[in-house]
Amino acid sequence: MKICVLPGDGIGPEIMAQAIRVLNALGLKLEMEEALLGGCAVDATGTPYPEATQKLAREADALLLGAVGGPQWDSLPREQRPERGLLGIRKDLGLFANLRPAILYPELANASSLKPEIVSGLDILIVRELTGDIYFGQPRGIEVREVEGTQQRVGWNTMIYAEYEIRRILKVAFEAAQKRGKKLCSVDKMNVLECTQLWRDIAIEVSRDYPDVELSHMLVDNAAMQLVRAPKQFDVMVTGNMFGDILSDEASMLTGSIGMLPSASLDANNKGMYEPSHGSAPDIAGKDLANPLATILSAAMMLRYTFNHEEAAQRVEAAVRKVLAQGFRTGDIYEPGTQKVGTRAMGDAVLAAL
Amino acid sequence: MKICVLPGDGIGPEIMAQAIRVLNALGLKLEMEEALLGGCAVDATGTPYPEATQKLAREADALLLGAVGGPQWDSLPREQRPERGLLGIRKDLGLFANLRPAILYPELANASSLKPEIVSGLDILIVRELTGDIYFGQPRGIEVREVEGTQQRVGWNTMIYAEYEIRRILKVAFEAAQKRGKKLCSVDKMNVLECTQLWRDIAIEVSRDYPDVELSHMLVDNAAMQLVRAPKQFDVMVTGNMFGDILSDEASMLTGSIGMLPSASLDANNKGMYEPSHGSAPDIAGKDLANPLATILSAAMMLRYTFNHEEAAQRVEAAVRKVLAQGFRTGDIYEPGTQKVGTRAMGDAVLAAL
Ligand SMILES: CC(C)[C@H](C(=O)O)[C@@H](O)C(=O)O
Ligand SMILES: CC(C)[C@H](C(=O)O)[C@@H](O)C(=O)O
Repeated sequence: MKICVLPGDGIGPEIMAQAIRVLNALGLKLEMEEALLGGCAVDATGTPYPEATQKLAREADALLLGAVGGPQWDSLPREQRPERGLLGIRKDLGLFANLRPAILYPELANASSLKPEIVSGLDILIVRELTGDIYFGQPRGIEVREVEGTQQRVGWNTMIYAEYEIRRILKVAFEAAQKRGKKLCSVDKMNVLECTQLWRDIAIEVSRDYPDVELSHMLVDNAAMQLVRAPKQFDVMVTGNMFGDILSDEASMLTGSIGMLPSASLDANNKGMYEPSHGSAPDIAGKDLANPLATILSAAMMLRYTFNHEEAAQRVEAAVRKVLAQGFRTGDIYEPGTQKVGTRAMGDAVLAAL
Repeated sequence: MKICVLPGDGIGPEIMAQAIRVLNALGLKLEMEEALLGGCAVDATGTPYPEATQKLAREADALLLGAVGGPQWDSLPREQRPERGLLGIRKDLGLFANLRPAILYPELANASSLKPEIVSGLDILIVRELTGDIYFGQPRGIEVREVEGTQQRVGWNTMIYAEYEIRRILKVAFEAAQKRGKKLCSVDKMNVLECTQLWRDIAIEVSRDYPDVELSHMLVDNAAMQLVRAPKQFDVMVTGNMFGDILSDEASMLTGSIGMLPSASLDANNKGMYEPSHGSAPDIAGKDLANPLATILSAAMMLRYTFNHEEAAQRVEAAVRKVLAQGFRTGDIYEPGTQKVGTRAMGDAVLAAL
């Protein structure tokens, strides 16, 4: 069980340290090796996804990532920005299936900006395609052209999906739905975009292999509304890379505690990269303030999906639930009456609960 | 003051009838002529934006639209679907600036799925570009191609913006911000999409002409989150057609009373098409249940933007506020303790308040 550990930027190293302590405490035979990804990699090597990282990443069975990015790298040329490292590693490893649960922990119900009755018990899984769509589509660029009689800049990108890409992500989504509430909502914009008309057609075709799952379709603008209006109507949602980026972040925020939400990005053989859904939070980096629980829960997802170690995954998840029940809170989820702790102390609490 | 009236489909004709009664009660010299758009036009003529409508639409100073679409037209070939009529008329008339206010009426604060402290006093204006982007970009289509050694379907669309398109919508947004809270948030996905990198570059350039407006930038995924987390941080938001479709619907739903929200789609000379932000609600069509207030408020926007008749616009808006204060509610915004009324009775109440 070879794990490539990518602490990344901002709060990445701090939260990763706690996840590693938890993994080490499980008594499993895990081999971990660290590598650079994102801004730290740019600083050290000039590129956000260096060759040494590529080599380790390809050899590993799973990857655990903290977070990448920060304002100091925002003005670099496109190819050197930390996000390119993230996009590069996703594409390079073929991690096409991004699973993003949006779960509201009962203890944290107050953290949501939505009314309790709207979100209590919320448990959605968003399945986002991660290696196709307008993220990677060619052609793309910015150039000066003649437009309406004058020379001006034009910027363009290509939204594109091939049948096999749509088919394989839908299979992942249907199978996830089979293990859950057996309801799948496929999100598209078929009334405007041909690319997503194909998505809908294929969703209907694939659904014939999953008669036990109830498939519905929703336009992306309506999905953005329904997530606000009545999010509990959803079980599993599946959509393309671009719409998935927007909707999965919206769904995470419904819980009010994005610091609790893990994610998995899987290839066709359950090799995966696991990372918290939140970002690198440069403003609180290095201050022992960040919430390590999403990273710890990402490690649990890794145990489940890549290493098929359901029992260990559940032990970790139970420990996290226990520290919440005990009242430990980092600043992002703190409320009066609970006990505020730092990143490391939260790690201590999870270890104790294990 | 020539108005082309487009009742459209579903609840369209009912809500439009009330808006027309209100307009007629103002004692202005308004010339109104009706035309077909959407599904009703398909049924009557075979096309969703027939030539007779085109002629009237081009000659008119303003257009008032109910809503288009319904399930009975969903399986028609692409070019005959009601939405094509909407997209066609927007493009044909050059209505590039879509203004969508998301306002929470104090009387309706309970309707929101968000906590009162998060949304009370909410007043955002979303400025969405409406005639460019991936909505109209070429090339686009679905075709069978050789992909990875097999013949398979591929679907694609093109996200594209030319400098002049970005510049003119940003001007509209900056000018709107000048008349409001002087804060403009431009939404893009510059870390992935070159097209929106150009958008950001031009936003920065245009901002030099508006030193009194504070410009900020936000990535679309973050914007989708921030709208849920803390929507009152925004004054005016501006973005492209696709992101605007998603974010403006999300923002409308924050209020919980999308039946109250008007919209305007303007060309370069303040000719405009005005319509409620909600859809055609086929399930309640013809039952005297629909809320006509968004359409009535759309008529008020028309008086303000196209006819420069601020006083008449304010009279209508004041009348709407008054009926809310009096406790009249259609089913969509009803709560115990208020008086439930139908579409026509709501129109009566507004007329009485005038
Ligand atoms: C950093 C960025 C490129 C990335 C994305 O858009 O995919 C991020 O927002 C995410 O969702 O993981
Ligand atoms: C009906 C559809 C084509 C349209 C759009 O996507 O623009 C609608 O959702 C809107 O926002 O007016």
